[in-house]
This record gives sequence, C-alpha cells and structure tokens, in this order.
Amino acid sequence: MLLLTPGPVTTADVVKQALAQDYAPWDNDFRAIVRKLCADIREVAGGTPETHVALPLSGSGHFALEAAVRTFVPAAGKILIPQTGAYAARLRRLASEAGRTVVPLPVGSRERTQAAALAEALCDDPRITHVGLVYSETGSGICHDVPLLAQVAGGLGRRVIVDAVSAFGALPLDVSDLPAVDAVVLTSNKCLEGPPGAAFAVCRIDRLEASRGNAGSWSLDLADIHEHGKTTNGGARFTPPAPTLAALSVAMDLHRQEGRAARLARYTVNQRTLYDGVRALGLEPYLPTELQGPIIVNVQAPTVPGWTLQGFVDGLKRRGFVISNFYNTEEPTFRVGCIGAITPDDMSRAVEAMGQALSELPIAA
Amino acid sequence: MLLLTPGPVTTADVVKQALAQDYAPWDNDFRAIVRKLCADIREVAGGTPETHVALPLSGSGHFALEAAVRTFVPAAGKILIPQTGAYAARLRRLASEAGRTVVPLPVGSRERTQAAALAEALCDDPRITHVGLVYSETGSGICHDVPLLAQVAGGLGRRVIVDAVSAFGALPLDVSDLPAVDAVVLTSNKCLEGPPGAAFAVCRIDRLEASRGNAGSWSLDLADIHEHGKTTNGGARFTPPAPTLAALSVAMDLHRQEGRAARLARYTVNQRTLYDGVRALGLEPYLPTELQGPIIVNVQAPTVPGWTLQGFVDGLKRRGFVISNFYNTEEPTFRVGCIGAITPDDMSRAVEAMGQALSELPIAA
Repeated sequence: MLLLTPGPVTTADVVKQALAQDYAPWDNDFRAIVRKLCADIREVAGGTPETHVALPLSGSGHFALEAAVRTFVPAAGKILIPQTGAYAARLRRLASEAGRTVVPLPVGSRERTQAAALAEALCDDPRITHVGLVYSETGSGICHDVPLLAQVAGGLGRRVIVDAVSAFGALPLDVSDLPAVDAVVLTSNKCLEGPPGAAFAVCRIDRLEASRGNAGSWSLDLADIHEHGKTTNGGARFTPPAPTLAALSVAMDLHRQEGRAARLARYTVNQRTLYDGVRALGLEPYLPTELQGPIIVNVQAPTVPGWTLQGFVDGLKRRGFVISNFYNTEEPTFRVGCIGAITPDDMSRAVEAMGQALSELPIAA
Repeated sequence: MLLLTPGPVTTADVVKQALAQDYAPWDNDFRAIVRKLCADIREVAGGTPETHVALPLSGSGHFALEAAVRTFVPAAGKILIPQTGAYAARLRRLASEAGRTVVPLPVGSRERTQAAALAEALCDDPRITHVGLVYSETGSGICHDVPLLAQVAGGLGRRVIVDAVSAFGALPLDVSDLPAVDAVVLTSNKCLEGPPGAAFAVCRIDRLEASRGNAGSWSLDLADIHEHGKTTNGGARFTPPAPTLAALSVAMDLHRQEGRAARLARYTVNQRTLYDGVRALGLEPYLPTELQGPIIVNVQAPTVPGWTLQGFVDGLKRRGFVISNFYNTEEPTFRVGCIGAITPDDMSRAVEAMGQALSELPIAA
C-alpha cells in the first residue's frame, strides 16, 4: 500500500524498522541521535551553529507553526498573511486564536503572491511586525516564491515566519541568505520522508533570546525549548516521540544520500507523470502547468452525476494506493501527493489504477 | 534492553510491530481504529458515550494537561493545585504561563494531600473555580487519593482536572462517580504500555460544549477537537501520530486481556520486588512503605564520595536495564519505574544488576 495522501507519506522500510524499538529519550545515546538530527535539519535549512538552531516539538507541523507565531510575534504584534489557500487560512486562524492581530492579504486561488502587493501592504501599515508565508500551499498545489517575499519583507524592516511544512527538504531554502526569517517550520512526515509525530522550527538564535516570555504557553514556547536544550545538552522538556525521532534520523541519512536537489527532481518527475497521466485519462488538473508545484496535484472532480470522491478513493485503495478522501479547494477536486519514498514508476502505476478506478464508477457506465 | 525510566516504558513486541507501518490518518479504516481506541480509553476511565468523550492530542501528557487547563479554566478562573512534587509544580507552571491564576496548596514532599486541607483552602477562597490534582506524583512516587479529593472539591462546587498521566490504566478511576471532574489527562506511554507521542483527555461532553472559546490556542483546544471529531466521524484536525495511535490500539487490546486490576497487581509486585531488593542491597528508598505507590520508586543515592548517578546508570545499561539519568526529588535519588511490559522476574534481574553496578563504582572499592 503506497500513501499518496500527501503526508504522512510512504516511508522507506529502514525508516519503519527504526520505529519498532523502545527508546529511552533521556539516555545519553538517544540525546546524541536528537542532536545529530537537529544539526542535520539545520544544515538542510542552510543555518550555521552560530546563528541558527533546529528545535523539535512533539506533534504536527501545525503545533510548531503556532509555537513560532506565539514565540516571535509579541502579543502587541501584527502579522500579515497572504491568503493563498487552505493552509494560509489555517495560519490566519491559529494566529488569531493565539490573540495576535492578523492582516490578511488577498491572493487569488490560482495566483502566486506578488512581491509588489506584499510591499504595498507593508508600506500601508507600519504596525505590521511580521509576515507569515506558506511556501508550498497544499490547498492549491502552488509553491510561492518565499525567498523573494522574505527579502522584500526584510527590506521593509519586517520579520518573517515561513510555513515550510510541505516544502522542507525538497524546495530550496537558505536561511543564511534570509536574515529577516525568524523561523522556518517543518514536519517529520512530508519531504523528509519520516513518520508523523514530530515537528521542528529552524530559528535564529538571537531572535529566540530576544523573544523569551512572549509565548503565553509553556508547551508551545520555542524560546523555552531552546533554553532547555542549551542547559541539558539537547534534552527534551517533556517526553518526546522517541521512536519517531529515531526513525526520522534514519530518514535524514537517506535524504543526505539522495540530496535535496535530486529529491526535488524525483518529486518533479512524479508530479509530471501524474499531471500528464490524469490529462491522458480525460481529467483536468486544478492548476495550469506554469503554476503547478511539485508537491501535490489537485485534479478537478469529474462533474458527471455518478462521481463520489469516496468511491474513487476506495477503488484506488483496492489497487494499493491511498489518496485523501477530502479536498481543500473551493471546487470539488481530488488531491494526490507526489512526495514520499515513491518513484515515477510508482506514479505511473497509480495513474493506471486511477483509470481502472474511474472505469468502475457509474460515470463510465 | 528493558526501559525502567518510568515512561516511555518497555512495550510488547506486537505493539512495536504495529508501529512499523505507513498509515493514512484520514482513511476510513484508520478512523475506525481511532474511534475504537478512544472508546476503549473512555471505558477504562469509566465514562459512557452519553456523558464522556476521550479526545486525542499529539504530543506528551504535558500538552494534553495544558489543553485541559486552557479549555476548562476560563481566563478569569482560578485553579488550586496541591504542590505534591515535581509534576504538580509543572502543572502550576503551565497554568500560570497560560495566564490562569494559580493558588498553590503546600503539601509535604512525603505526605499525601489531606482532604481537610483542600476543603479549608477552597472555603477560604470562593473565587477558586478549579482544582488540579496529580494522581501519581512521579516526582516522589506517592499516589494521592484523587477520587476522594475530587469528591471534596465537587462537594464545595468546584471543578476538577486530573493529571493521571502516570496512573491511567493501572490506578482505579471512575469518572461516572466523579461528576466534578472536567478532564482526566493521560498518555500513550505509561501504564497503557504504548509508545510515546500521543496524549488523551477524557472529558465531560457537557463541559466541553460549555467551554468553547476558552482555550486561546487552536492547537490546545479540547472543545475544538471534540467539535471537529463530531463533524468528521472521528477525523483528526491536523496530521496525527498515526503509527503511535495504531500501536496504542494494539496495546489497549493487551490491556483489556490483562485487566486493569491485574495490571496494577503486576506493577505492585514489581514495585515490592524493587523496594525490598534495594533495601537488601543496603540502599534506602525515598519513601516509607506506607506512602510508596506502585508506579515509581525513588531510591536515595549513596552518599559516599565516589557515587555518580550517570556511572550507575551506565553500569545498569551495560546489563540491559535503562533507568533515568536525572531525579525529581530535592535530595539526590535514582528513580526506577515499575510499569511497562515487565514482570517481577525482570525486576529481580534488575535488582541483581543494580548490585553488580554498585559493586563496580568507587563506593564499593
């Protein structure tokens, strides 16, 4: 059974095997695994030990994103968030519920965030302290030009939080070139191809030190995680998801062997195989080619009366492929992930299975 | 290698094997696993489908405890917390950082919380809305009479949050008898003998409905988890730690087969084997017999100059047993967990290994 959900993703067998052990999280050998894991993640982000730290947090990317907002945006701060889709809407809601003032920047659902529009909005409101940017908008499948947008925001004296949850490890990112970025948020179970259950924020150390006392939540305080890690040589504050971290450390070895650019290239071929494949089946992708990112493809649902997403999902599952049984676009779509330990050959077989599953539905009758 | 840390605990092989799979969290088959898991946990708590719900949250018990405080104690509320040790101190800190007013009730480090002292403190301050109670205080090893204390608090018109993190699944608890209890907080990786990475709160449904909008955190809002679960037939809001939940569902089958009372009996024999065993080695437990709970035994560190906790921990690890390399008492101790998939025979071997590890230390020279 291959997961094309997109995330949690299909993981390699050696990653799964590393899950199947009991680990003692405060054991010195285990601390060394976590220290290495965090150093590896920082390296993928382009950070140095002097300037940046990768901080682990239990849970999903959403938790780490809330932690980043709470830690770096003070209670009196104001965060502008380009509304690029479902995951930008989530960022907006989590910031609002954390009591931060959010300024939404409208973006069309089939558009990239424009640097000029961002600059104008920031100039219009000098009280905006932060910009929150979704790198790969899983809602639509569009990847936004976060490096450019972060530079624009930085040039206007604002700080940036990057939701790189579905991008990190595949799309290029170099925090050493982006001094305005306070935090890059990522998860174990997307392009790093680990199991779900752990999230991370790669943060500027100077900003962490300056942000103590902001969070209003002990659980979700990145400054406290940093402080605790410093004084305990990488120890956890609370029981961490130790098997998940150990398995992710194995996944990071595979990431290093493959290389970020090669992983992106593989995902891109996966995506093209899928994109061209569904068109050959007579289906229409949600995005035009020039906007389609490599992480997730949304495909417009057939509009004939017999279509049900669950029926299609069930047909695919019988053939060994699991896709999401929900979608995040305004219009009905089905969503297919191009990431994880899957190859273009796997994706060709998935497309074939889609054709078979479609032919079983009432629409083809 | 057996974990006596206490928690994460040693898990059964079938539990570990269930971790080593890729799971699609929103898949209908997986939702059924989680619904069954939550129903099983509610049943262990004594709740009925009409009155209570078990809500899953990614992360450690600490996260679920913060979520319970945020959800049930309104911003203007006030929570009294008997200060029974390190974990009560954590509860105090997390409530304070969440902006709730905390009233600490002093309790001696080798004392059980007295019902009369609790009643007096509540009568003294009618603005106290909640009481936070740690069931098994892992800091000391003392188990407090939470059923009695919750009844006292309820009789005085106060609501109760129970930190049952290291107690749930072994110590008796029946929420159907304790109407004052808003939430019982637990984790996957203690007496339920699952892997770490998931926590739960068993909550009153009527109180969840009345507590919407309190949390000030989307991630840690139990009312929102409940609402989302109702509308999605047990779906998760954000990517859950799917392998951990699947493995815990296997662990719950083992819990049902053994039975809660039999599990407690096994842990109690583990504890007595350890307690009597270390005394036979010439060491002194931190607690007198009548206060010693079945979950964790703290043992006073030998006071001779050559003793180091890490040296002792390393010696035990070479013999196949992992204990904590830190302690939570004021005085130096070492802590040994009596829980997990371990037997009294395992504990006898652990005591033997302790004797050998001690004989290697400079203290025995």
